[in-house]
Amino acid sequence: MSSDVEELINELSFEDGLISAIVQDAETDKVLMLAYMNKKAFKKTIKEKMGYFYSRSREKLWKKGETSGNVQKVKEIYIDCDGDAILVKVDQENGACHTGHESCFYRRLIDNSFRKVEDRVFDPEDVYGEDK
Amino acid sequence: MSSDVEELINELSFEDGLISAIVQDAETDKVLMLAYMNKKAFKKTIKEKMGYFYSRSREKLWKKGETSGNVQKVKEIYIDCDGDAILVKVDQENGACHTGHESCFYRRLIDNSFRKVEDRVFDPEDVYGEDK
Repeated sequence: MSSDVEELINELSFEDGLISAIVQDAETDKVLMLAYMNKKAFKKTIKEKMGYFYSRSREKLWKKGETSGNVQKVKEIYIDCDGDAILVKVDQENGACHTGHESCFYRRLIDNSFRKVEDRVFDPEDVYGEDK
Repeated sequence: MSSDVEELINELSFEDGLISAIVQDAETDKVLMLAYMNKKAFKKTIKEKMGYFYSRSREKLWKKGETSGNVQKVKEIYIDCDGDAILVKVDQENGACHTGHESCFYRRLIDNSFRKVEDRVFDPEDVYGEDK
C-alpha cells in the first residue's frame, strides 16, 4: 500500500509542497470547498478514506471535522490533466464551512454584490465554541 | 460599472496577484477545471460574462476558448468564505480540457491507479493544430 501511494504521488505536481483539492458533495455534486493537501494529507486521505488537508494559516495537517465533527467520507478521487489539482467527492457530515454553511461558496454575485444564497446548517458557536 | 467591479475585487483575496477559480458546468454540476484569475481576468469575466483566466505558464491573460472555440459562457459566480477562491458556473462549449476531454478531471483513482473514466469529446489536433 505504502509504495502504491508513493507511485500515485509521483503523478501529482505539488507546488511549495501543496496541491489544490476541490471538495465536492458526492451525492449532490455541490462544490463544498477548496483546500490544500501536502503529501502527508494526501496519503492519510487515501489510507483512511477521510478528508485530510494542510492548513496554510495554522501550518499543520488537519483532519476535516476533527473539531466540529463535520467529517468528510471520501468516495472518489480525481486528478486533473496537469496533475496539479485533485477533485475529491465526499459524503459531507453536516456542513463543510466553518461559518456554518453547507458550502464555503454560500455567496453568489447578484446585481453587482455578493449575496448569501444559503442558510446555515449549523451554528458555529455550537461546534467550535464561543471563541471562534 | 467600473467602480462596482472595484468594490467586488476588494472582497476578494488575491495571492501573488491571483485567485483560484473552480469552473463547474452550470447544467450538470460537473467540475470542469481549476484555473487562476488575476484582477483583469476577473473584471473581463464579469464584464463580458465569458471565462477569462491568467495563465501562469504563459504569464498572460487568457480567454478560455480563444484558440479552440471552446468558450465558457458565465452563468453564476460564487465567492468562498475567506474570499480567496471563486466558483464559476458556466455553459461550456464542447470540452473544457486541452486534452480533448469534457473535464480536466477525467482520471479517477481506481484500485490504486489513476484511470481514464471519460472519452474525449474532441480531438485536440483538430482545434489546436499538430504542434499541440
